[in-house]
Amino acid sequence: MEHNSAIVIAMFGTTVESALKGILNIQDKMTARYPNTPVRFAFTSNIIRKRWQKRAADPEYRQLHPEIPTEVFEVKTVLATIADLQDQGYDSIVLQPTHIVMGEEFLDLGTYVDSLLRMGTIKKKKYKPFYKIALGRPALGMYGTAHPYAEDILAAAKALASDAELARSAQAALVYMGHGNEHFPSAGSYLELAQQMRTLYPDVVTLIGNVEGFPPLSNVINELKRLGVHRVLLKPFMMVAGDHSVNDMAGPEEDSWKSVLEKNGCTVVVAESGLGEIDAFAELFVRNAGEAAADAGISLNA
Amino acid sequence: MEHNSAIVIAMFGTTVESALKGILNIQDKMTARYPNTPVRFAFTSNIIRKRWQKRAADPEYRQLHPEIPTEVFEVKTVLATIADLQDQGYDSIVLQPTHIVMGEEFLDLGTYVDSLLRMGTIKKKKYKPFYKIALGRPALGMYGTAHPYAEDILAAAKALASDAELARSAQAALVYMGHGNEHFPSAGSYLELAQQMRTLYPDVVTLIGNVEGFPPLSNVINELKRLGVHRVLLKPFMMVAGDHSVNDMAGPEEDSWKSVLEKNGCTVVVAESGLGEIDAFAELFVRNAGEAAADAGISLNA
Amino acid sequence: MEHNSAIVIAMFGTTVESALKGILNIQDKMTARYPNTPVRFAFTSNIIRKRWQKRAADPEYRQLHPEIPTEVFEVKTVLATIADLQDQGYDSIVLQPTHIVMGEEFLDLGTYVDSLLRMGTIKKKKYKPFYKIALGRPALGMYGTAHPYAEDILAAAKALASDAELARSAQAALVYMGHGNEHFPSAGSYLELAQQMRTLYPDVVTLIGNVEGFPPLSNVINELKRLGVHRVLLKPFMMVAGDHSVNDMAGPEEDSWKSVLEKNGCTVVVAESGLGEIDAFAELFVRNAGEAAADAGISLNA
Amino acid sequence: MEHNSAIVIAMFGTTVESALKGILNIQDKMTARYPNTPVRFAFTSNIIRKRWQKRAADPEYRQLHPEIPTEVFEVKTVLATIADLQDQGYDSIVLQPTHIVMGEEFLDLGTYVDSLLRMGTIKKKKYKPFYKIALGRPALGMYGTAHPYAEDILAAAKALASDAELARSAQAALVYMGHGNEHFPSAGSYLELAQQMRTLYPDVVTLIGNVEGFPPLSNVINELKRLGVHRVLLKPFMMVAGDHSVNDMAGPEEDSWKSVLEKNGCTVVVAESGLGEIDAFAELFVRNAGEAAADAGISLNA
Repeated sequence: MEHNSAIVIAMFGTTVESALKGILNIQDKMTARYPNTPVRFAFTSNIIRKRWQKRAADPEYRQLHPEIPTEVFEVKTVLATIADLQDQGYDSIVLQPTHIVMGEEFLDLGTYVDSLLRMGTIKKKKYKPFYKIALGRPALGMYGTAHPYAEDILAAAKALASDAELARSAQAALVYMGHGNEHFPSAGSYLELAQQMRTLYPDVVTLIGNVEGFPPLSNVINELKRLGVHRVLLKPFMMVAGDHSVNDMAGPEEDSWKSVLEKNGCTVVVAESGLGEIDAFAELFVRNAGEAAADAGISLNA
Repeated sequence: MEHNSAIVIAMFGTTVESALKGILNIQDKMTARYPNTPVRFAFTSNIIRKRWQKRAADPEYRQLHPEIPTEVFEVKTVLATIADLQDQGYDSIVLQPTHIVMGEEFLDLGTYVDSLLRMGTIKKKKYKPFYKIALGRPALGMYGTAHPYAEDILAAAKALASDAELARSAQAALVYMGHGNEHFPSAGSYLELAQQMRTLYPDVVTLIGNVEGFPPLSNVINELKRLGVHRVLLKPFMMVAGDHSVNDMAGPEEDSWKSVLEKNGCTVVVAESGLGEIDAFAELFVRNAGEAAADAGISLNA
Repeated sequence: MEHNSAIVIAMFGTTVESALKGILNIQDKMTARYPNTPVRFAFTSNIIRKRWQKRAADPEYRQLHPEIPTEVFEVKTVLATIADLQDQGYDSIVLQPTHIVMGEEFLDLGTYVDSLLRMGTIKKKKYKPFYKIALGRPALGMYGTAHPYAEDILAAAKALASDAELARSAQAALVYMGHGNEHFPSAGSYLELAQQMRTLYPDVVTLIGNVEGFPPLSNVINELKRLGVHRVLLKPFMMVAGDHSVNDMAGPEEDSWKSVLEKNGCTVVVAESGLGEIDAFAELFVRNAGEAAADAGISLNA
Repeated sequence: MEHNSAIVIAMFGTTVESALKGILNIQDKMTARYPNTPVRFAFTSNIIRKRWQKRAADPEYRQLHPEIPTEVFEVKTVLATIADLQDQGYDSIVLQPTHIVMGEEFLDLGTYVDSLLRMGTIKKKKYKPFYKIALGRPALGMYGTAHPYAEDILAAAKALASDAELARSAQAALVYMGHGNEHFPSAGSYLELAQQMRTLYPDVVTLIGNVEGFPPLSNVINELKRLGVHRVLLKPFMMVAGDHSVNDMAGPEEDSWKSVLEKNGCTVVVAESGLGEIDAFAELFVRNAGEAAADAGISLNA
């Protein structure tokens, strides 16, 4: 029996047009690596998807935004994107999320993969809708023995050399705003990354705080004070420079990170671009997709 | 949280244009009962689906067949049909197969339902792609305590009154050709149905044989001989009068049921229409969908 | 990594001391075939197990019944029996039910096997509690392509030669009382077996009725009348000659099968022994266990 | 239908006799809280269980260790312990691991719970072996919305007041040796706990390093140097003071934490007792078991 493979890039999604760059860059890199394999993307956020469905049906919006590819207007859920591929004859899927850490959204996708693989096994293997499905790991790795997370964190730190250089040029400390999670203890990965960056780029002070959960911005500020740093390059540690970046990080409100850092005596330079726009970082997901395929025994057509 | 419901009718599918009547009749009956609920259908056969995809792309074919509804040309797999509904905001699905007995295909759909319900449970219930999914039982019932299969078989026997009448008018025994299965022992349901029909319509000899598995045509012939019956109305015990009906049952080949019965001294009248075309039989699936929804706590908009 | 295998024979259980023979015979046959593999048995009925726990704690009962092996007094649930084996270092289990058909109890055990195999997979394969678990099929087979059920039914019919001989000697029709099920349509397997026996032993009229579900005793009586049979050998089509056999089949009550058959003009000879006591029938489960092990890649130590 | 509940405390286990105190203390606290509910414990380590099985069969050992309770000699796997309870009529189980963080071992137990709950659902609910099973969370919490992990970490920090007092009396920094994991990024929980302790007990420098994974001992040493600390109270951040404590932490080898800290200029006081011996810490598991039961709707008999 012949098997056909496809790649689905899964992400939360964004409604900020300029933020699409991060997403499309990852898709471009993936397609460049596997030019003969379909590479689709899917948005998990219902609200964001509905927004794009509305925009798709709005001729005025479409005329104003000729730069937005059709695929964005037609974006579906992860399940519908995978199911359409199955309907079209693809039975081997690599699902590559663009998540940074193994949190709720990533584990939920894991339940999708497990469930899809459980479909259809009463009598004949050939009537299973899927032959193989692989789930690529997040940028900062995940649990498991095949790919030690410490090596993933080190590779991510190396992929962020351009950010270190940006801070160095600005003669500033590099302060990342991560997303974090009040309901999912993932702080260790962020903190280990920051330490690896300080080791790799010893002339740049690199610190990470999270919007939700540990460590909070106050920890970052205490550390800046302890080190006597007064100049900060502020950048989102998120795949796309979307709503969090525009508002929570760099917005004019009193409680934006920029405002709070300034109130604490820092000069703040803002770099509003998502990690997905950094080629070396985007390539991490291409690597992860390829390794997940190899681990599962899926052939991708390069 | 608001929930939206939809119905998906699942069947093997057919490429025989005239056989579509059986399918569309069930959809019509379902829509008449639940006019404000989307009622889609899906084909499980990859080969049949591909054939319709080809026909859809063939302008000549489409011009020759204006009677075929667009939905047939765009028919998808069960998974893709359900996933599209999810993408469009439906989180409560009633999946109603048009299977006659609980066999391989039905149980495989059961694994779909179980699997879809297992997706997305790490943290927040609201991020599950589906709220509820119900699987309607086959025409002749299934295991379980909620709906005793003997009652379903009795109801099916009653729904076939017009077939008994047909045989009566033809002064013939009613011989059904069931599908059966060499790998799934489901003969009991067929045999119990035949007995119920003999009880309900005592003036008509009703017998069922299966293409695959037990009881074979030879059993039917032995019984016809024992009873001294020489005139037979031959009819497929299948939802649609597709390939099995056209060839295996009524075809001119030596080993068609018609030929074999004639060789055994019977005059054979053929009735080439699927069970789906009998309104009372089509309604069984409407009942089953409704009861599955009720059992699962899904509201369907009538 | 080294793997250790064990066999668990699962059955409903019985409290009737004389009926234990059927169970112990299957265990003996299994042990004779795999002398270097532990062969345990488990009772699924909570009520029966509790009864044996009480008897185990009753010194008077134990003194009166020195013939009952310790293992019966210590019998546990299927789960606890398998779990004890795991605790003792066995990670490969063949679970062989003594069910006659694939019904509720068999499918429930299937969920046990699936579930046990799903335990423990987050990081290291070696921390899974089980390496492999195989479920042997019932006497009359099950769905699937590996072992066509029609062949299993034929083999069972052959294994019942001694029953045919018994009826022949008694110059009687052989009437089996099966269990059957109001909630699980399994009649086809019984009816196909009866037909195979009539083919193999054409001089003996063999009929099967079920206590629950289709076909009822009335069907058997109608057929006896049609054939003009007045002498019947009545025997349970159950593994052990337990409560159903003692009371429902052969009891003095008006509605026992014996009484009803007599009322319908039959002379009834009763054979109160379970199918498990027939060596050739007991061997079917040894075959099924061996083939399930082979299919799953489990080595049993002969 | 009546339901019976029981509690199973799951832990890796230990062969160090003096370390059993930590385990038994948790069991005692649990029993004190739920005196009318069976409270069993289970060891997940095969090697440790086998060691106790050997000791159990060694009369000399047993005579030398009259202080060890029978339950330790008879300890089983988690599955066998739960299955025995099922065999004895308990269908509602609270499984409370004594894990510190949500890592591999905890998630593996989660697969046990999921799997046990999936057993036996074909027809009748009452034939499910289990009615409800709840998994209590680790000491430092887990993902989910019901019990924010930050609150769990704060509660754990409060429960460690006696350790802070110990360090204060010794006029030393409190350095915990955690286990950590090279294959599971859980460092965030440890680091957040250390910070909470520094906030609650500002006069005590509290630091945590891990045997495996991030943060390593070298991080701890750098921080001690930065703060100019020369006196350290070294204590395992593990439930029992077992092998890691005796050897890796306090052993005489050159690479024990004690030796390395001394080489780096610290005076080291060792406190070799497990967290399970701290009553307030043991009570965290009693709380977690109770809350898991309440969340699942299981009644525990107090």
